[in-house]
Amino acid sequence: MTIGIGLLGLGTVGAGVAAILASPEGRHPLVAELELRRVAVRDLSRPRPLQLAAELLSTSPEAVVDDPAVEIVVEVMGGLEPARSLILRAIAAGKPVVTANKAVIARFGEEIAAAAAAKGVYVLIEAAVGGGIPIIEPLKQSLGGNRIQRVSGIINGTTNYILSRMADEGAAYADVLADAQRLGYAEADPAADVQGGDAADKIAILAGLAYGGPVPRAGIATEGIDRLDARDVAYAAQLGFVVKLVATAERLGSGAPAPGEPISLDVRVHPTLLPKQHPLAGVHGVNNAILVEGDPVGQVMFYGPGAGAGPTASAVVADILNIAGIRQVGGSEAGLDPLLAASSWRQCELVDGSSSRHRNYVRLHTRDEAGVIGRIGSCFGAAGVSIQSIVQFEARDGEAEAEASSAEGSAEGSAGAKAEIVVITHEVQEDQFRQALAAIANLSDVTKVAACLRTL
Amino acid sequence: MTIGIGLLGLGTVGAGVAAILASPEGRHPLVAELELRRVAVRDLSRPRPLQLAAELLSTSPEAVVDDPAVEIVVEVMGGLEPARSLILRAIAAGKPVVTANKAVIARFGEEIAAAAAAKGVYVLIEAAVGGGIPIIEPLKQSLGGNRIQRVSGIINGTTNYILSRMADEGAAYADVLADAQRLGYAEADPAADVQGGDAADKIAILAGLAYGGPVPRAGIATEGIDRLDARDVAYAAQLGFVVKLVATAERLGSGAPAPGEPISLDVRVHPTLLPKQHPLAGVHGVNNAILVEGDPVGQVMFYGPGAGAGPTASAVVADILNIAGIRQVGGSEAGLDPLLAASSWRQCELVDGSSSRHRNYVRLHTRDEAGVIGRIGSCFGAAGVSIQSIVQFEARDGEAEAEASSAEGSAEGSAGAKAEIVVITHEVQEDQFRQALAAIANLSDVTKVAACLRTL
Repeated sequence: MTIGIGLLGLGTVGAGVAAILASPEGRHPLVAELELRRVAVRDLSRPRPLQLAAELLSTSPEAVVDDPAVEIVVEVMGGLEPARSLILRAIAAGKPVVTANKAVIARFGEEIAAAAAAKGVYVLIEAAVGGGIPIIEPLKQSLGGNRIQRVSGIINGTTNYILSRMADEGAAYADVLADAQRLGYAEADPAADVQGGDAADKIAILAGLAYGGPVPRAGIATEGIDRLDARDVAYAAQLGFVVKLVATAERLGSGAPAPGEPISLDVRVHPTLLPKQHPLAGVHGVNNAILVEGDPVGQVMFYGPGAGAGPTASAVVADILNIAGIRQVGGSEAGLDPLLAASSWRQCELVDGSSSRHRNYVRLHTRDEAGVIGRIGSCFGAAGVSIQSIVQFEARDGEAEAEASSAEGSAEGSAGAKAEIVVITHEVQEDQFRQALAAIANLSDVTKVAACLRTL
Repeated sequence: MTIGIGLLGLGTVGAGVAAILASPEGRHPLVAELELRRVAVRDLSRPRPLQLAAELLSTSPEAVVDDPAVEIVVEVMGGLEPARSLILRAIAAGKPVVTANKAVIARFGEEIAAAAAAKGVYVLIEAAVGGGIPIIEPLKQSLGGNRIQRVSGIINGTTNYILSRMADEGAAYADVLADAQRLGYAEADPAADVQGGDAADKIAILAGLAYGGPVPRAGIATEGIDRLDARDVAYAAQLGFVVKLVATAERLGSGAPAPGEPISLDVRVHPTLLPKQHPLAGVHGVNNAILVEGDPVGQVMFYGPGAGAGPTASAVVADILNIAGIRQVGGSEAGLDPLLAASSWRQCELVDGSSSRHRNYVRLHTRDEAGVIGRIGSCFGAAGVSIQSIVQFEARDGEAEAEASSAEGSAEGSAGAKAEIVVITHEVQEDQFRQALAAIANLSDVTKVAACLRTL
C-alpha cells in the first residue's frame, strides 16, 4: 500500500528527498512504499538535476497540501511564511507533517504543536537540528527514563567551520568569513549563523524536547562569533582549550519543582572555551555534535554532518518512515504515540544565568608593571574567585596597541599599557565572577577588559 | 492506566531499572505509568541496596513471566539459559520483551525474532549494545532512508580501558589487565572481553539491524587484544595512530544484488590502527562509540558510556517506554510498527575479507644490514602494494631479542637480527597484501613477521 508524499520546495534538501524516494533499492523496504505525488516549486521552468514528471510539479503549495493524493506533507521550503501557514493548513486537513524548518519550529512550535495535538497528527522535525544526525528521535524515544541536566552542542556548521580555520591557521575572523563565503560554506548574509541566531533556534528546539516543555525563543541569551578576536583563539589553544560556538540548555536547581511550578532553565549561545579533551572539542569543520547529560545515563554524544542535501534528506526520510511505520499499527481512529508526538508535559522558565556556575577566560590589557598580577589575583581572591591560571603573554603587537590607545583614550596612558594578561578561573558562580571583574576593571593598572569568555 | 512490569534479575542493571521506576518525578510522564509488579531473584534473603516489598520477589522466573499482572517482561539476568527459554515463554504468552542480553540475541536472535513476529509482539534490545548510548533505536528508526556502507565501533569497554592505559602508560597488556581486574573494570575470567567475543556478539546485532537480515554469529572473524604487544601500541602512537579493538561490518560490492540473492558482508573484530584524527580515535577508557556510514547521510557517530548500572538501565527503560507509548496507538488487534519491530527484510552472507581494501601495519624483525629496507620495499612493490611509510626503529631491547632467538631458532642467526622495521601500507586489497607479506617473510634478512594489524 503506497503512501502519497507531497513536497513543498525542491531546493537542495527537497531534491535530496526526491532522490531517495526515486531509488528505494537497498534502503529500508518501507521507502519503496512512499510515492512522491505532488511537488511545489517556485519556478516551473527552472532546470533541475533531478528528472520529475511535469504533472507532479505545481507552483501552488496550497494545491499540494490540499491534494487528496497527498497523505504526508513535507515542508522543505524554509523561511517563516508561507511555511508556517502551510504547516497549519496540512494539520487542519488531518495530514501529518515533516519539516526541516528550525526557524518556524523555534518560533511557532507551540502553536503548531497545539494544532497537531488537537487534530491528532504528527509533526516531525528530525532535520531541523543537526542535519543528518539522529538527535530529535533519540531525545524523544531513547532518553525518556532520564532526568536531563544539560544539553550542549555545536549546532551551527558555518561558525564551526570558521572557528576551526581560525584555530588551525591563526587567521582573523573577517578573513576566514570572506573565504567561507567564497567557498559556499557561509551565506552572502551570514548574520543568522555568525550572530548565533541559528544556533539559538536549534537549542530552543532541543531544550523543549529534553525538558518536556516549550522554551521561549526570544529569551535565549545569544552572542555570536562576529566579535571574536583571533588572539583569544590562539591564547586558548596555548592554555589547552579550543573556542567553539556552544549552545547550552541547563537545568538550574535540582529536585522536583512544586506541582504547577515551572522548572528553571539557563539557555544560551556564545563562544565557549572547551578543554581539548572535552567530547565536543574534537568536532571540526562543518560537523555538528550534541552532548546530552542525564541521570542515570551520564554523557551521551551524537555526532555527524550538520547540514547538506544528503544528510538533511536522510533525516527528512527518517521522519516520513516513522509516520509510515506507525500507520501500520492502528486504524484511522488510532491515538498518538506520546513519545513520537512529543507532547509537552511541563513548563519551562528561562532564568538569567547569574546563579550558574562555570569557569571563565578573561583577557586584560594592563600596564607592564611589577605587581599587576598580584593586584588582579587579589581582586579575584577578595571576591572568593579562585584562579586556575594567570599568564602574562608577550607585549601586544601594533594592532592591539592601536586598539588600546584608541579605545581607552589618553587618560589610561596607553604608552605604559603593554602587557596582556589572561586569567582562567576555577568554577565560580556567575554573579560572583562579575563582581570580581568589575573591581579588576577599576584597577589603575588595568586599561581594558579585552575579552571575557565562558569556559566549560 | 498503569502497565505492569516483570523483572527477571535484580543484579546491577535490574536494580538500576527498579530505581528509575521507583522515582518517576522529573522523567518522562510515561515512566509514572510503569509499575513493577514481580521480580525474579536467585536468593530471596540476599540484602539489597533497593527496598522492594517482599511480595514482589520470587525465585521463579517462570512465575514472573506467567503472572497475569505482568504485561512487559524485562530480562536482565544474562547468560544463555534460562534467559532464552524465558524470552520465548514471554513471547508465547503474547507479552512484549525488553532484554539487555547480547549473548542470547547474537546467537538466538533469528529464533526469537521469528517467534515474536508470529505472535505479533515486540522484542526490544537497546541495552544489548553500547550500554546507555542510543544506537539500536537510531539504526531502526532514524537511518532507514540510507544504504549502509559500514558500521564500525568500539563496543567493548573493558578492552578499550586496557588499550587506553597501554597507550597512556606504555604498559604491557598483562599488567594492565591484572590492574583492571583489581579495579573491577575486567572480570575474573576476562576471556569474552579480551578475546573479542563480546564485541563480536554486539557487531552481529548491529549488522543485522543495519543491513536488515540476520548475521551468522559463528562466521565473524574475531581476534582479541590478548596477544597485542605494547611496542605496537607505542610505535603506532609515534606514527600518528591509536590502537583500538574495532568491530566492523562492511558491505562488499555495491549496487542491488539480484532478487533473492544475499548481500555480501565482511564482519570482523580485531585490534585496529586508527589515525589520531579518526572520530573513533578519541574514545577513551570504558566509553563506547559506534560510527555508521551510509548514503546519503555520510558519517554519524554515537558516543557514551558502554556499560554500568545507570546507563544500561536508561536503555532498558527507553525500550519499556517505547512499548508503552505504542500501546496507546492501537487496540489489542494492532499491527506492529515495522521499524520498531525491526523485522528482517533481506539476507546477509558473510564473505571472507580477501577482497576488502584497507591499510596495514606490519612490524618485522630483520638483520641490521644495509639494503634491508630496499628489499622489503621491492617485495611490496612487486605485488603492487604501495607504502605510506617504512621506519626502522631502534635495535630491539632484551625482551624482543630473547623472543626473536627463541621463536625463530638458531637457523635465522639471531645474533644478526637486531633491527625492527615498521611498514604502513597504502590502501590495498587484502589478498594482494598477504601475497606480498608471504614473499617478505621468505627474505633471508627478515627473521620474523612480529605483528600485522589492519589500519583504517
